[in-house]
Amino acid sequence: MTLRVTWRASASLVGTVLKWMTVPLLLPLGVALYYGDGGIAAFVTTIALSFTVGAALERLGDPADLGAREGFLMVAATWLAVSIVGAIPYLVAAHGLPGIAAATSPGSTLGSPVNALFETMSGFTTTGATVMGDISFDQHSHGILLWRQLTQWLGGMGIVVLAVAILPELSVGGAQLMDAEAPGPSLEKLTPRIAETARALWLAYAGITAVEIVLLYGLHHGGFAPNMGLYNAVAHGFTTMATGGFSPEARSIEAFAGVVQWVIVPFMLLAGTNFALIWQALTGDTDALFGDSEFRFYTGVLATVTALIAGLLFTGPTLDVVVGPIAGELESSLRHAAFQAVSIVTTTGYASMDFAEWGAAGQYVLFIAIFLGGSAGSTGGAVKMVRWLVILKSLKRELFTTVHPEAVRPVRLGGRALDETAIRGIYAFTAVYFVLFVAGTIFVAVDVTRIPETLSALEVMSAVAATLGNVGPGFGAVGPMGFYEFLPASTKLAMVGLMWIGRLEILPVLVLLTRAYWTS
Amino acid sequence: MTLRVTWRASASLVGTVLKWMTVPLLLPLGVALYYGDGGIAAFVTTIALSFTVGAALERLGDPADLGAREGFLMVAATWLAVSIVGAIPYLVAAHGLPGIAAATSPGSTLGSPVNALFETMSGFTTTGATVMGDISFDQHSHGILLWRQLTQWLGGMGIVVLAVAILPELSVGGAQLMDAEAPGPSLEKLTPRIAETARALWLAYAGITAVEIVLLYGLHHGGFAPNMGLYNAVAHGFTTMATGGFSPEARSIEAFAGVVQWVIVPFMLLAGTNFALIWQALTGDTDALFGDSEFRFYTGVLATVTALIAGLLFTGPTLDVVVGPIAGELESSLRHAAFQAVSIVTTTGYASMDFAEWGAAGQYVLFIAIFLGGSAGSTGGAVKMVRWLVILKSLKRELFTTVHPEAVRPVRLGGRALDETAIRGIYAFTAVYFVLFVAGTIFVAVDVTRIPETLSALEVMSAVAATLGNVGPGFGAVGPMGFYEFLPASTKLAMVGLMWIGRLEILPVLVLLTRAYWTS
Ligand SMILES: [K+]
Ligand SMILES: [K+]
Repeated sequence: MTLRVTWRASASLVGTVLKWMTVPLLLPLGVALYYGDGGIAAFVTTIALSFTVGAALERLGDPADLGAREGFLMVAATWLAVSIVGAIPYLVAAHGLPGIAAATSPGSTLGSPVNALFETMSGFTTTGATVMGDISFDQHSHGILLWRQLTQWLGGMGIVVLAVAILPELSVGGAQLMDAEAPGPSLEKLTPRIAETARALWLAYAGITAVEIVLLYGLHHGGFAPNMGLYNAVAHGFTTMATGGFSPEARSIEAFAGVVQWVIVPFMLLAGTNFALIWQALTGDTDALFGDSEFRFYTGVLATVTALIAGLLFTGPTLDVVVGPIAGELESSLRHAAFQAVSIVTTTGYASMDFAEWGAAGQYVLFIAIFLGGSAGSTGGAVKMVRWLVILKSLKRELFTTVHPEAVRPVRLGGRALDETAIRGIYAFTAVYFVLFVAGTIFVAVDVTRIPETLSALEVMSAVAATLGNVGPGFGAVGPMGFYEFLPASTKLAMVGLMWIGRLEILPVLVLLTRAYWTS
Repeated sequence: MTLRVTWRASASLVGTVLKWMTVPLLLPLGVALYYGDGGIAAFVTTIALSFTVGAALERLGDPADLGAREGFLMVAATWLAVSIVGAIPYLVAAHGLPGIAAATSPGSTLGSPVNALFETMSGFTTTGATVMGDISFDQHSHGILLWRQLTQWLGGMGIVVLAVAILPELSVGGAQLMDAEAPGPSLEKLTPRIAETARALWLAYAGITAVEIVLLYGLHHGGFAPNMGLYNAVAHGFTTMATGGFSPEARSIEAFAGVVQWVIVPFMLLAGTNFALIWQALTGDTDALFGDSEFRFYTGVLATVTALIAGLLFTGPTLDVVVGPIAGELESSLRHAAFQAVSIVTTTGYASMDFAEWGAAGQYVLFIAIFLGGSAGSTGGAVKMVRWLVILKSLKRELFTTVHPEAVRPVRLGGRALDETAIRGIYAFTAVYFVLFVAGTIFVAVDVTRIPETLSALEVMSAVAATLGNVGPGFGAVGPMGFYEFLPASTKLAMVGLMWIGRLEILPVLVLLTRAYWTS
């Protein structure tokens, strides 16, 4: 039995990523120096460690040996490695170092290694589920809370590059579909080389983030959003484009004026859009975006879910939240409906209110939305729009061929016939997705019987779906105004695994568990 | 737009079925005459009506015009027609006729047309969900309660004929898979003509039912089961082979001695087995049965679920039911585990105890089991074993081709490569199944907010899964010791639809809703 995987090549590239992570770490370090409220030691330690470990790993092998197989290993290992190293600032800030006092006040939950790993994995996978009970500057320094936001922005950028430039090379993640699109946002058509593609996407991602920050901060200057200062504008810019959902405000976007919520909606919508199509639109080819069948389906779904929720909120029982009453108020109903529909469908996970206050109908609509997901090639998670679209079209075909058993009718997407292998792959992905959801639900449902808190089946299922789909908040105790800290450590570790495997389109992680991957 | 369906041919065959239904109706009529506790008028009326309507329908068209398309319509219309006509005894018994007193005591819930239709559809689809709050001879006559049992036996026989002889002709219901089996229990191999096949299956079905009745009544005679008299033996024989689950005892099989539970287990196992294979085994070819990959998978699943539940019951909190304590008792743990595992997986729905008393782990295992289902070609419902087996094999293949993108590797079942179209059809079926489950859950969850009772998410989901999968009891209020009567009429009607569509392998009913079916 010979090992057929040049794991040293994968390790070397993980090392390169760790080495480069020292650059973004300079930002929270700068913030820590500026505010002087703690965290300098935490970031200096992490920078030194990340650089040393990264350089050591880099020397293990030659990245030129990277084939498809090594690619799977590298992708899976990268998200694990950055989540472990990225947890160090939380731990150092909570416990201090010999001769250096802790930066975080003693009540913080981030001093536990499991909690710190959960929060970092939730960051880098752009999930946004949190174990922080008290999100405030009283407890955490400005540097630490910005690092939390930044992990999502970095994770989101990684995901865009992964989804558009790397996974298609490995024939994973709906890549076959993107190729089938006409005019398709496939790798070859976009730019000739991965590095160039990555740079283009990086530019679009950073540019849109900058525009959002400027707009949010502009609202503050115009007097429309008193609490949306520069820090908050940057912090939310970081987590919108990543469909991340972390907020330094304990009550998420409910803490801000209605106009802030309206401004964030189109950016969440963009974040859930295929970045290759955004890049094409930015370079003049808007037809590529508006003619894309996934984009049209995606916006149709968003409009439908928004309309459903708006109707329920408008006619439902009177609800009153921080930014005003809802029932019977048209703007307010529409705003919260659009905000929550777009936030959950794109898997951002921001909240403009605690939807646990909604009636049963609204909650079930939102629960289904947890499974929908953004577009392929976006930072959005969950099952993703293109898969649902293909499944719907394939089911329609199945009904037709039941009546006409001899008919040969391909499934068409964007005018082209889809390869049957791609359709099969989509069914397989969706099946594995729900198998993981069910297995996770059973594990968590049984595991939480060990703690005093009682969770309803809906709370358990929503928590599992929200971590596997990188959505973030579930319902009730694990909802947008709740947190995951009270769960048993074993449940939290399982969810770390769900966020990780869900973020990486499942298969690249699952194949690592097969013997065929290592030896055949 | 021309109609392309010769609906008169379908209607004619439905008429023939209604005409023939008068024959089994003679049995409860005889029982009513024997016991003299009411129901004679109910059955005489129904016999007259069924014969008249049947004869009228029969004249509408020529059954020789029946093609595949007319087959779908005939199958769907048959189950609807017998459920409507079969509800008449309940209604007449509850309300009486001019000059004839009611046979059922006034407190009965079966006087409501929605409830009567629910109970009859639940019978003919072998679901076993009940709206009868008080199942006792104090309230209902022996004839009426036997008719309830008999609807299941007739429905089960119809399903066997449908699954083995009719649906394969329409290329529905895993028929492609049965053809792929070697040695396959396909229609052609079994007997040359549908009528002969149907007769063979009928014989096996009736013969095994008779053996079970004799065994159960034998236990009574031997003094092992005082309350398993002839009436009860026949009543339970009728609903075991049908995987029906109705019982004239309010506490289901919990009402009987442990030995009765042990005797029923192998008959439920047989009821969930492909009847074509049973027929082959009975005629000497036991290798066909024991070498069949679905049968091996099926028994493996049953053994696994039994072992899991037995472990949980043995080590769990102390439970005490009618037939004795469980925790720490080996025989008792094994018996209840085997009984409930086999009962739920085969979709029989009998209960040896209220599993709402189990811990979370046991309940979740059982909840998953609601979706498993019996074998193709059996009276069992839900998704069915062969589909899960093919999905598992296909997912394994998907992992392999992720590592080896260029590899061509067919999915094998019983030594033969499966057609990719068949695999796709299985994914499509399973997807539609879960779409219906989710849509049903949302509808019911919202609908039940109109009644004073509060249902948990698990109760709602289990009720929807138990009706769609023709399992019968869900959890808690709709569990084996509960009933469906308190639900809103709209929910009960939706469940009538779920039982109907679920029983007929979904697609034959869904195609009726497409335009292609009627006109293209
Ligand atoms: K998120
Ligand atoms: K049943």
